[in-house]
Amino acid sequence: MESLQDENFDNAANAFCDADRRAVYQAIHTRRDVRSEFLPTPVPDALLARLLMAAHHAPSVGFMQPWNFLVVRSPAVKQKVHDAFKVANEEARLLFPDRKRDLYSNLKLQGILDAPINLAVTCDRKRSGPVVLGRTHMPAMDLYSSVCAVQNLWLAARAEGVGVGWVSIFHEDALREALAIPADIVPIAYLCIGYVSHFGDKPALETAGWLPRLAVEDLVFEDQWGNTSAQGNHALLKNLHALAELERTDP
Amino acid sequence: MESLQDENFDNAANAFCDADRRAVYQAIHTRRDVRSEFLPTPVPDALLARLLMAAHHAPSVGFMQPWNFLVVRSPAVKQKVHDAFKVANEEARLLFPDRKRDLYSNLKLQGILDAPINLAVTCDRKRSGPVVLGRTHMPAMDLYSSVCAVQNLWLAARAEGVGVGWVSIFHEDALREALAIPADIVPIAYLCIGYVSHFGDKPALETAGWLPRLAVEDLVFEDQWGNTSAQGNHALLKNLHALAELERTDP
Repeated sequence: MESLQDENFDNAANAFCDADRRAVYQAIHTRRDVRSEFLPTPVPDALLARLLMAAHHAPSVGFMQPWNFLVVRSPAVKQKVHDAFKVANEEARLLFPDRKRDLYSNLKLQGILDAPINLAVTCDRKRSGPVVLGRTHMPAMDLYSSVCAVQNLWLAARAEGVGVGWVSIFHEDALREALAIPADIVPIAYLCIGYVSHFGDKPALETAGWLPRLAVEDLVFEDQWGNTSAQGNHALLKNLHALAELERTDP
Repeated sequence: MESLQDENFDNAANAFCDADRRAVYQAIHTRRDVRSEFLPTPVPDALLARLLMAAHHAPSVGFMQPWNFLVVRSPAVKQKVHDAFKVANEEARLLFPDRKRDLYSNLKLQGILDAPINLAVTCDRKRSGPVVLGRTHMPAMDLYSSVCAVQNLWLAARAEGVGVGWVSIFHEDALREALAIPADIVPIAYLCIGYVSHFGDKPALETAGWLPRLAVEDLVFEDQWGNTSAQGNHALLKNLHALAELERTDP
């Protein structure tokens, strides 16, 4: 899937061996947002512990580690969360124009009741006091740290053969109430976690025709916003184009 | 570093082989926020392209792929960004109490001029129209998608032996001006990217005594916020404790 050859790779004394680099890219490129393929098979505690440790080793602004992990196993709590999803999903559905609305109605957008584990990842903005190194001028940085924890967990789960789906179709207050999350804690992600029948070849929304994969070459600028004509960028774009072609012909 | 044995691992038909799982965990656990260890060695375009492709394959809400990647190579532009950092850093320094302020002053918090590549990752909130699947009730979801792109890139870079440092000590307007970022585009991350002399054993702020690593066991609840006494949680906490012990004795 990836072309790993470089002109001067000897410089990378700290690089992983080729097989290990490929494994990391494989996790990144085959990770999916899972909604439909969950199996009821229990997720071992040893595995879930590894996923949470992966999340806990995310970068965090000022090393504040603002996350908590609320593991949901209770069917009654899952049902409450699912009820909250249903309310919000109906509201969201009505916002789409007719053609999109039909497609939307046919999409399965969560596996709350199917996944053996649900997990809320949160951000405690007061975790290390009022002044946080690196957050003063960009106040959202602590929220972003918790998001990095989610992505670490997601990639680790892929390597474990475990699917993760991020559900964001809730009124925040309804989610707080279902999980008794205090007012000063920010819910970042509600994840459905479990073994899966398979991982889709492509993102589910791409397969369903909701939106296409964008050409990465169109998203890259050099030195100033909108600048695509710099010399350095030209070589980079050629390489990006080659990788994108490889993906289209051999996904 | 990780105990990978499970009681019923046969269930994981979609899991990576042990060596590949270990590689993914290695990237997660040895990734560092690099500020001091950058080498001037050029980063090959083929490698940078792989990093950007990894970022482009992050999860995104409603598959909107809201990110752009602004690659900064120009010394003049880096200097402008560095100037913006200096202003904000002096303001931030003064907010810490005396003892912390001295420690803060001695920390190197960015490698803007040292790293051969700087990269701004942004979020275009209008990318796919006004209504985005999954963003209606949690409006920050598109920002979080761009954060996931950053974390994908960061882990891929670690596997490539390339360091990444996230600098957030800027006034947003000063950063916009240095990079000509339009008003309706949100700067998410400013990253310094380059080969490194080495990766630290621990996060730089942990080594410097800024803050300690939190015990992950204290951050996990079951079913409701604050609930640590559930039966399921007990087994999970035992596993987490064992992993944390392993890390303390064999980092």
